[in-house]
Amino acid sequence: MSGKFQVGILGATGTVGQRLIQLLENHPQFQVTVVAGSDRSEGKIYAEACIWKLPGDMPPRVKGLRVQAPVPPFECDLIFSSLPATIAQSVEEEFARAGYPIISNSSACRMHKDVPLLIPEVNHDHLRMLRLQQSTRGYAPGGFIVTNPNCSTIMLALTLAPIYRTFGLTAVVITTMQALSGAGYPGVPSLDVTDNVLPYIQNEEEKIERETLKILGQMKNLEIEEATFPVSAQCHRVNVSDGHMAAIRVRLAKPANLEALRDALGSFTALPQKMNLYSAPEKPLIIREELDRPQPRLDRSAGGGMSVTVGRILPDRVLDYRFVALSHNTIRGAAGAAILNAELLVAQGYISLPRSRISRHEI
Amino acid sequence: MSGKFQVGILGATGTVGQRLIQLLENHPQFQVTVVAGSDRSEGKIYAEACIWKLPGDMPPRVKGLRVQAPVPPFECDLIFSSLPATIAQSVEEEFARAGYPIISNSSACRMHKDVPLLIPEVNHDHLRMLRLQQSTRGYAPGGFIVTNPNCSTIMLALTLAPIYRTFGLTAVVITTMQALSGAGYPGVPSLDVTDNVLPYIQNEEEKIERETLKILGQMKNLEIEEATFPVSAQCHRVNVSDGHMAAIRVRLAKPANLEALRDALGSFTALPQKMNLYSAPEKPLIIREELDRPQPRLDRSAGGGMSVTVGRILPDRVLDYRFVALSHNTIRGAAGAAILNAELLVAQGYISLPRSRISRHEI
Amino acid sequence: MSGKFQVGILGATGTVGQRLIQLLENHPQFQVTVVAGSDRSEGKIYAEACIWKLPGDMPPRVKGLRVQAPVPPFECDLIFSSLPATIAQSVEEEFARAGYPIISNSSACRMHKDVPLLIPEVNHDHLRMLRLQQSTRGYAPGGFIVTNPNCSTIMLALTLAPIYRTFGLTAVVITTMQALSGAGYPGVPSLDVTDNVLPYIQNEEEKIERETLKILGQMKNLEIEEATFPVSAQCHRVNVSDGHMAAIRVRLAKPANLEALRDALGSFTALPQKMNLYSAPEKPLIIREELDRPQPRLDRSAGGGMSVTVGRILPDRVLDYRFVALSHNTIRGAAGAAILNAELLVAQGYISLPRSRISRHEI
Amino acid sequence: MSGKFQVGILGATGTVGQRLIQLLENHPQFQVTVVAGSDRSEGKIYAEACIWKLPGDMPPRVKGLRVQAPVPPFECDLIFSSLPATIAQSVEEEFARAGYPIISNSSACRMHKDVPLLIPEVNHDHLRMLRLQQSTRGYAPGGFIVTNPNCSTIMLALTLAPIYRTFGLTAVVITTMQALSGAGYPGVPSLDVTDNVLPYIQNEEEKIERETLKILGQMKNLEIEEATFPVSAQCHRVNVSDGHMAAIRVRLAKPANLEALRDALGSFTALPQKMNLYSAPEKPLIIREELDRPQPRLDRSAGGGMSVTVGRILPDRVLDYRFVALSHNTIRGAAGAAILNAELLVAQGYISLPRSRISRHEI
Repeated sequence: MSGKFQVGILGATGTVGQRLIQLLENHPQFQVTVVAGSDRSEGKIYAEACIWKLPGDMPPRVKGLRVQAPVPPFECDLIFSSLPATIAQSVEEEFARAGYPIISNSSACRMHKDVPLLIPEVNHDHLRMLRLQQSTRGYAPGGFIVTNPNCSTIMLALTLAPIYRTFGLTAVVITTMQALSGAGYPGVPSLDVTDNVLPYIQNEEEKIERETLKILGQMKNLEIEEATFPVSAQCHRVNVSDGHMAAIRVRLAKPANLEALRDALGSFTALPQKMNLYSAPEKPLIIREELDRPQPRLDRSAGGGMSVTVGRILPDRVLDYRFVALSHNTIRGAAGAAILNAELLVAQGYISLPRSRISRHEI
Repeated sequence: MSGKFQVGILGATGTVGQRLIQLLENHPQFQVTVVAGSDRSEGKIYAEACIWKLPGDMPPRVKGLRVQAPVPPFECDLIFSSLPATIAQSVEEEFARAGYPIISNSSACRMHKDVPLLIPEVNHDHLRMLRLQQSTRGYAPGGFIVTNPNCSTIMLALTLAPIYRTFGLTAVVITTMQALSGAGYPGVPSLDVTDNVLPYIQNEEEKIERETLKILGQMKNLEIEEATFPVSAQCHRVNVSDGHMAAIRVRLAKPANLEALRDALGSFTALPQKMNLYSAPEKPLIIREELDRPQPRLDRSAGGGMSVTVGRILPDRVLDYRFVALSHNTIRGAAGAAILNAELLVAQGYISLPRSRISRHEI
Repeated sequence: MSGKFQVGILGATGTVGQRLIQLLENHPQFQVTVVAGSDRSEGKIYAEACIWKLPGDMPPRVKGLRVQAPVPPFECDLIFSSLPATIAQSVEEEFARAGYPIISNSSACRMHKDVPLLIPEVNHDHLRMLRLQQSTRGYAPGGFIVTNPNCSTIMLALTLAPIYRTFGLTAVVITTMQALSGAGYPGVPSLDVTDNVLPYIQNEEEKIERETLKILGQMKNLEIEEATFPVSAQCHRVNVSDGHMAAIRVRLAKPANLEALRDALGSFTALPQKMNLYSAPEKPLIIREELDRPQPRLDRSAGGGMSVTVGRILPDRVLDYRFVALSHNTIRGAAGAAILNAELLVAQGYISLPRSRISRHEI
Repeated sequence: MSGKFQVGILGATGTVGQRLIQLLENHPQFQVTVVAGSDRSEGKIYAEACIWKLPGDMPPRVKGLRVQAPVPPFECDLIFSSLPATIAQSVEEEFARAGYPIISNSSACRMHKDVPLLIPEVNHDHLRMLRLQQSTRGYAPGGFIVTNPNCSTIMLALTLAPIYRTFGLTAVVITTMQALSGAGYPGVPSLDVTDNVLPYIQNEEEKIERETLKILGQMKNLEIEEATFPVSAQCHRVNVSDGHMAAIRVRLAKPANLEALRDALGSFTALPQKMNLYSAPEKPLIIREELDRPQPRLDRSAGGGMSVTVGRILPDRVLDYRFVALSHNTIRGAAGAAILNAELLVAQGYISLPRSRISRHEI
């Protein structure tokens, strides 16, 4: 305890909420002290409010926490939010106004002009946008909203980042095969995916097509100039528990041979690796040479679920190159993404420990 | 009996062989009289040689047929072949030389310059190529080889045909999610697809990229001038028993609005429909308007497994349009395709009944 | 039309409701004229109220029917009910009071002393109970409630019936592996059954243990004397779309050799077969000799989904014999069961056509 | 290195072989120095001979080991064998004759009168049998064969052990739902289990029915007096990657209330726990109270895959009590079982380190 940041979780009983709690169980910097849920859960202790759906037991520390209503004040230093998009914006803004740092996995505020859509390996400089947010929104000191992208978009943007930086991009085509946990719980009815594939995920294609351009955009003063290449996304739900897979094609702005492309991907490393952030994987991108990799069951936990695995890098007959990417959608694609964001925000001084707990710790 | 064509099947105990036997059980023109299999099966009766893996019972008529070696002569008028590619060419050629019409599902001879790669709705005029085949190969009278395309390619070519004819095509991008039965039996190990997707199917991407251009090619004299637009294919195996799904994008040679594209697809009908061939579906392409269709489990049996279902027709940000297609890979994609080919060959006089059986029938 | 019985369906948009509509599409005696659903559906046409989840299209005839509230009067001669247990009893009784024959798939009234729990092959004589029901409940003439058993129980009772009649039973042990469609739609969340088995189905074990004894009970005057052997049921949900499987052990009252047991099962036939009822399968029980049958995917549609397939009949070390049974849970286990019940009720004069429609038909 | 036992693995490229290598990667006492495989693999380095099918990478240490033929001598102190039953006996005996301790997962020698069928928590005293083995078989000093039971049998015997010791048993009925990895790789064809259950696993029912009685038997002098209660097993393969589940009923010799039974199971602990063997789980049996547990996906990794999870403990109408058990079939059911056996054999002095390596280590 003591010197750790106290953490609140909005949407704590959901699929992403459970993953957050699992990943934070032994985190060196963060410690869950507040869990909030829907009306149905409010007032119960977490062990009773939450049907734990992850392998392994519910962390003992959270079992006895009483589920609070999503209303300030919370006894914590920062808040992870995985609220449904329908209510996320108003709740998150209320907490930000009250001075809490909000690290959100919800889609509600992602495309706001003054809200960073953050992947620490890709666009940490977008955090400068927070100055704009703080100057215009009138949040109490310390309060802000930072979001992480959609689960498929994170995987896409992470693989595009080194390509875009090195060769430029003029077109991207992505076809996803997404895991069931992406829809939460109860989520997809089993009759819809047994011996079946669904060619539709609500709003998913639009999110990928838009968010990617913001993430890869450039800061001009305090605003983002979005990337301008077209992105085409077709999204499918397949009968896989965890691990989004995507078949990706890219057209480059500058010619590149296969070797150069492979090098750009395989050697990619960025600020979180340099700063040695706790949840940063050693390699954000892992290249596999086997003909039949990546595969969800074998590769989703690579780098503790924080690495994207890339394989089948080949020339393409219509665009320039193609490859297949895979990442763990509730770790790198949601809970782990939010935690890595928080770690960066701490490391860069956007979130700081209240004097009281520092001193107790120091002494 | 009597007036029906007697049919032999090469590879009769395999996945496609079983489907052929099932589809031919009550066929008005064809009747299975010879089954051939591998060394292991030879000499056994079919009921013992074949582990029947389709719902429903093995048709009683074939149960007692003795499995022959794949060597002429066969007591039949035409032969369906679903042999493994490694041995198909030599066996099929041996039978053709002996004067048998070979309707092959094997990939071995598909790209030969004088072998039609036939989809009756798309390129029936390619049958003229048989004159070249017969003039150069020295097969005994009546002997020839006609092939059907790869299972995914049939689905692709059927959906492209009306687009290509109406608007032209300058690029095609296809990403497949293919069913397990496409790999035959025992085929894909269950551990490889449970809670998993495989991003690799041997030779599949190459087949789709090449065969499509031959199928959509134009006859010039007795040779084909292949279509020239680039095709990009990325292929995946998913945990579905039957029914290949594909996310397809197209770039058109002539501008077209969405309505016109939809009309071209939805109104598509061709020679087999006009000739009322027994296995021809009323609609080769069925357009579904629901947001989440097509789906393998719900749509694979449309048109008796011979229709391709198309949905999610939308403008695309990188190419011009995109849609999702689905078809039954062992019916329209293999056994049913071969049977429809045979029906066309009979209807157009390429295969005829021996005088002896005609007379018995007529009298 | 004309001479057919007009049929109403309570719970028409649900999983069993859809199966009823599918099975009744071309029924020679019944024709759906009324569909009723929940508040959410009420007032919409069926095509809009119902998300059709069966392979094949929604039957055109029902598409335009307007969904009614579950309140009499209905424009029909009999009513199939597949309402949730929570509301079934009051709604069904209201319609029975109003003079409608109710053929119910719901569990609500199954164990009532004066309500037949009917499997036509097993206990058609239980219909005499209706005299008691009609004399005590004060339903309007023609009104009554007949139920079919729980999906797993039907399979069990059908296989036990010939054993019980021939050898008697002193103990039955059943362990089920049940399909997803048994839980309706949305039913079981996909995350709960992907790469998983659930060892719990609410109330299922109790239903099997109790209903079996009523079904195999004997009519004494107008009441049932239930069978008295103990039944032990352990129930599991497995990742199968349709088709309940059960491992069954039996202890016999009289010694019997394996051959005799097998004969009793294999030769079983009953009243519905003699009367040639439309939905009665030629063989209620199909015995398979292969080591690895029955299997859901291969055997669930045997006898049009109305036969139970039995295999692996062997001596048992703890009880006397054991075997594995399989049946289609939404056909023989629900919708088809109800329809066969209705056919028997018509054949035995419990339901009759209103004079008006008879005459129109006869003339 | 240095002081660790050097370990050879027979069948090193198979499913259990890979699991052995994974579990031994960081083992404090054992270190893999020899891998042996079939003709096909022989002479290749392990990284090339083995298609690694477990999540996570192949341990770097074994990658470069050259695959040997299964013929002595091996450069190691003990040998784990997971050979196919057909060749296991002759190979294992050859190595034992040459003085190697064989810890075998194969079924070949399990029922030999002088071969311990060992579960350290259940019957460690059976190791005395080795004296008989050594006195009659003429193996070179240090050579012997110890086996672990069949995967399902281990789970069964572990749950029965505390019941049998406390209350006695007069009958056991088990119905299994077994995972795919139990059949090895390629193992079960995907078409056989997609949307399906298989009611047959070769020899499995016999193994469970026989091995259980040997395991729970009592040593009399140097021979085993097997337990005598009847065991009835029905076995099924379900669509689950890892984790065997079983519905179990027991009839007790002495009356016991539910509480007492639950206590016997929940408080079970044994020698490996007392000795603190490295692979021994803290609790061999974990009792879960939730209505719907155990579940393969959630519980198979409990205790590092070495605990059996038990739930749904209830009175039974035919036998006395029933419950559902689950364990990881390739860890507690195979590779982990063998390793725990080896740890016990070391702890009890049956396997000792050659003087040479001890001294190097000590100094």
